[in-house]
Amino acid sequence: MPLFLITNDDGVHSPGLEALVQELSRQAECLIIAPDRDNSAVSHSLTMNRPLRVTRLGDNFYTLNGTPTDCVAIGLNKIVKQRPDLLVSGINPGPNLGDDISYSGTVSAAVEGTMYGIPSLAVSLAGEAPYDFSKAAQLAAKLAKLILQQGLPQDTLLNVNVPATDLIKGIKVTRQGRRLWDNAIQETLDPFGRKHYWIGGGTPSPALGEDTDVYAVTNDYVSVTPIHLDLTNHQGIQYLKEEW
Amino acid sequence: MPLFLITNDDGVHSPGLEALVQELSRQAECLIIAPDRDNSAVSHSLTMNRPLRVTRLGDNFYTLNGTPTDCVAIGLNKIVKQRPDLLVSGINPGPNLGDDISYSGTVSAAVEGTMYGIPSLAVSLAGEAPYDFSKAAQLAAKLAKLILQQGLPQDTLLNVNVPATDLIKGIKVTRQGRRLWDNAIQETLDPFGRKHYWIGGGTPSPALGEDTDVYAVTNDYVSVTPIHLDLTNHQGIQYLKEEW
Amino acid sequence: MPLFLITNDDGVHSPGLEALVQELSRQAECLIIAPDRDNSAVSHSLTMNRPLRVTRLGDNFYTLNGTPTDCVAIGLNKIVKQRPDLLVSGINPGPNLGDDISYSGTVSAAVEGTMYGIPSLAVSLAGEAPYDFSKAAQLAAKLAKLILQQGLPQDTLLNVNVPATDLIKGIKVTRQGRRLWDNAIQETLDPFGRKHYWIGGGTPSPALGEDTDVYAVTNDYVSVTPIHLDLTNHQGIQYLKEEW
Amino acid sequence: MPLFLITNDDGVHSPGLEALVQELSRQAECLIIAPDRDNSAVSHSLTMNRPLRVTRLGDNFYTLNGTPTDCVAIGLNKIVKQRPDLLVSGINPGPNLGDDISYSGTVSAAVEGTMYGIPSLAVSLAGEAPYDFSKAAQLAAKLAKLILQQGLPQDTLLNVNVPATDLIKGIKVTRQGRRLWDNAIQETLDPFGRKHYWIGGGTPSPALGEDTDVYAVTNDYVSVTPIHLDLTNHQGIQYLKEEW
Repeated sequence: MPLFLITNDDGVHSPGLEALVQELSRQAECLIIAPDRDNSAVSHSLTMNRPLRVTRLGDNFYTLNGTPTDCVAIGLNKIVKQRPDLLVSGINPGPNLGDDISYSGTVSAAVEGTMYGIPSLAVSLAGEAPYDFSKAAQLAAKLAKLILQQGLPQDTLLNVNVPATDLIKGIKVTRQGRRLWDNAIQETLDPFGRKHYWIGGGTPSPALGEDTDVYAVTNDYVSVTPIHLDLTNHQGIQYLKEEW
Repeated sequence: MPLFLITNDDGVHSPGLEALVQELSRQAECLIIAPDRDNSAVSHSLTMNRPLRVTRLGDNFYTLNGTPTDCVAIGLNKIVKQRPDLLVSGINPGPNLGDDISYSGTVSAAVEGTMYGIPSLAVSLAGEAPYDFSKAAQLAAKLAKLILQQGLPQDTLLNVNVPATDLIKGIKVTRQGRRLWDNAIQETLDPFGRKHYWIGGGTPSPALGEDTDVYAVTNDYVSVTPIHLDLTNHQGIQYLKEEW
Repeated sequence: MPLFLITNDDGVHSPGLEALVQELSRQAECLIIAPDRDNSAVSHSLTMNRPLRVTRLGDNFYTLNGTPTDCVAIGLNKIVKQRPDLLVSGINPGPNLGDDISYSGTVSAAVEGTMYGIPSLAVSLAGEAPYDFSKAAQLAAKLAKLILQQGLPQDTLLNVNVPATDLIKGIKVTRQGRRLWDNAIQETLDPFGRKHYWIGGGTPSPALGEDTDVYAVTNDYVSVTPIHLDLTNHQGIQYLKEEW
Repeated sequence: MPLFLITNDDGVHSPGLEALVQELSRQAECLIIAPDRDNSAVSHSLTMNRPLRVTRLGDNFYTLNGTPTDCVAIGLNKIVKQRPDLLVSGINPGPNLGDDISYSGTVSAAVEGTMYGIPSLAVSLAGEAPYDFSKAAQLAAKLAKLILQQGLPQDTLLNVNVPATDLIKGIKVTRQGRRLWDNAIQETLDPFGRKHYWIGGGTPSPALGEDTDVYAVTNDYVSVTPIHLDLTNHQGIQYLKEEW
C-alpha cells in the first residue's frame, strides 16, 4: 500500500483535511502532519527564528506549532519511516488561483514536497462557505491515482482547484492566470480607536485568457495547473544581457 | 527627485537597511516601511488572520507588526503619497540563492512590488557575519540608476547577490540555480528536556551550472537574476495534455 | 445539572484536560474552551493587540487562538448560555507552586473566573512526565462538589496541587510559599550560531515554612491555597505613610 | 552613580520610555532592555516555549523578542554587569489601576524585579492620547530618589499612576481598588466576514473607596500603591480550615 503525506494550511482541525484523508485512506496509508492553527496566506514561510515542537495526536497523526512548509520539511526528515509516494495538501476552503498562489500555504506545502522530490498535489475548493468537500476529495483521490501511474514532469507539482458546483464540466490543464484585487486592505479601529489595516476582501479583477486557472474554474471546470520551482524569467536573461 | 520604497525582512533595526538607505538617499527620496522584528524566511507571507498596525518612527520612516509583503502592500496602498519609482528590499545579511529564494522575505517583498507594477530589486550580501554592507549598497545604488533608465522586463524583478569580497570580478546575469541543503534540521532540547526541531544550518549541495546564481557568487561575481511572477511550467502543460 | 466552564493553559489537545472533563462530566455539564496551542507561563495575559477567533470543535467544545484568560473572558461573555456554577482550569502537567503561580496560565484562568464572580479552581499535577492524571481528576471532582456546597471566600480562588504519588497523605490548606530558581535561563545557539536564551529549567530553592504549598506537596499532601485578587501590601501602606 | 534597569511593555520605540530615561539619566546610569514590540496586557508572561534573542541597539540599550518579564529576567541574569539599584518600568501611556494591574506588563516587570530583590517601580500616565510624559517622568525621578534613600517594604513594589493634569493636588498612598469593565469585548468581522472578538474598550465601573488607586487618580492625586508578591488570602486559610 503506498504512503501519502497529508498536510494543509488551515490547521489540524480543518474539515477539508478530514474529508481528504477519509477519501485517500482507501488507496494509501495516510500520514498527517498539519499546523496547530490557521496558516492561511503564510506562503512558503519556513520557521527559522525558533525551534518547533511536534505533538502526536494519534496513529499517523501529528501537529506542530509552525507553517505548512515546516510540516513538510520536518515530516519528511524526521517523522516518516519511509519515503512517501505522494504529498497531498488541502483541501483548502476557497480557491488558490492566479497570483494568489504565491501567498498560498496550501500550494507552498506542495512546493516543499516537490523540492524533496516527492510528487505533490495541492487541492482547493473554489467556492464559499459552507463548504462541501466531498467532490473535491473524490477528485483528489482520482488525481492521486493518476500521478502514481503516470508521474509528473520534473520539479513540478499540480495545483488543483475544484469548482464548488454540482455540474462540473470536466478537467482543464491550465496556466496560472493573473488575479489582482482591488480594495483588498480594510481599515478597522481597535477597541481603543487606533487605526489598523486588515488585509483581505476586495474585488478580484476579471480573468484574462481562456487557458488560465481563473477562467477554467469560473466556467465550472476543474483547473489543474503544473507549477514548477524555477522562478527565472529566462527570456529576461536575454533581454538584460542585450539591453543593459 | 524619484521616490524609492525601501523595506527588508530583518526588521527596522537592521544595519543592512541603514546602509542601503544612506546610499540610495543620494539619488532619491526614500520612504522606509519595514517589519518591527526579524522576518527571515517568511517568504511571501501575507498576514490575513489579524489586522496590522503601522507605527511612524520618523519622517518617511515606518514600521509594522507584520511581514515584508505586508509592508509593501500597506506601504503602497496606504502610506505613499505618490507611486514609487522603485522598490528596493534589503540588504539581507547572507545570500538568497537557488531554491532558497522561494523562502526569502527579502525577495518576496520585491515580488509584491512587482505585482503592483513597481520596478523592484532585492539585494543580499552573500557572506557571513560580521557584514560590511558598503559595497553592496553602492552596487544597489548603481543598479537602481540603471533600472530607472532602462526599465525591467514585464512582471520581472531583479534578485541581486553581492559576494562579500574586496575583489568583485564583475556582474553576471544568471538563472536561479538549485541549492539544496543536507542536515538542515537540528534537534534541540528545551530546558525541560523536550525535543524540538530547529530548521537551519546544514551543508548546501554544490552548485550545478555555470550560468546559475550560486555559481556566479561562489566565483566572486555579482549575480543578477531576473525573477518573474509566472510559476507555470508551460512545457508541463503540453506534457499533461498529451500523456495523461 | 450544574454547568462547569473548563479551560487550561496547555491547549485543547492536552491529556490533562481530557482527564479532567471525563471526571467532572459525572456531576456537571462541562463546557470547554481552551487555547489552540501551549500557553504555559503566559500568566494573566489578555490578548488586546489583535482580535480572537473562536472555533467550535464539537458540542460544548471550543478553542481560540489566544490565552487561557482570553478563553475565560470570551467564554463567559460570548459563549456560555447561562452563568457557570464553577470554573475549573487544568489539569496542568507539573506543579504551580510558590512564586511560579504568578506566571501560571492555569492559575490565571481561575483568577479571571474569580474576577467575574465565578467560583474557580486551578488544578495541577505536581510530578513529572509521564503523567497519570486520574487521581488529580478525582480530587478535582471532589473539591468541585465541596465548593458547590460550601462556597468560597469572596474574590478568592483555590490553587490545588496534587502530588504525583500513590500514597497521598491528605489535604492541607496552605499559603503560597516562595519558590525561586537558580540557573533558570539556558544559553543555546540557533543553527546559525547566534546566542539565544531559553528560560526554564534550573534548580528550585528549598521550601521555607511548613504551612506553604511547596512544603505540603513535597511531603505528599494535596496543597489547597486560597488565592485572592487583592495585590496590595496593606501593611506597606502604613509603612509608606509613616516613614516616607 | 547608581545603576537603574529600565523596561516597559510598549516596546523599545515608546515615547514614554524615552521620557523616562531622559529624566532618570540625571541621577543614574540607565540600562534599557525593552520588548521589540507592543506587549500591553501580557501580564507576568514569561516566554518558555521558545528561546529569546537579545539585540544590542546601542550603549546600555537592548531589545528582545519577548515580554517585559523576559526583559527583566534576562537583563538581570545575563546583561547587567552589576546589580541594579532600582528597576523602573514605564512610562505606560494610560493608567494601571484596580484589577487591571493583574494584566499589566508594566506592573509585572516590576513584580519580576521585586522577585529578584531589586527595588522596583512601575509608572503609568493616567490619561489619554496625546500623552505628555514630562510630569510623570519628573515624578518617577523624585520617587526613585526617595526609594534609594528610604527603601521599600520587603517583597513590595510601588505601582505609581500619575494623573494627566496640570494641577496635581499631591501624592496619595493607596490600596488597589476594583476596576471592572462593562462591554469590554467588541465583535468585529474580518475581511472575509468571519466573526472575531477584540478585547478592550468598554466602560469602567465607578471607583469604590476613597483610599483606592482609582479614586486618587480620578481626583487628580498621584496614586502610589504598595504591591506585594504574596497572593494568599490569609483570612481565607482560616475560613477553609474551619468551615470545610
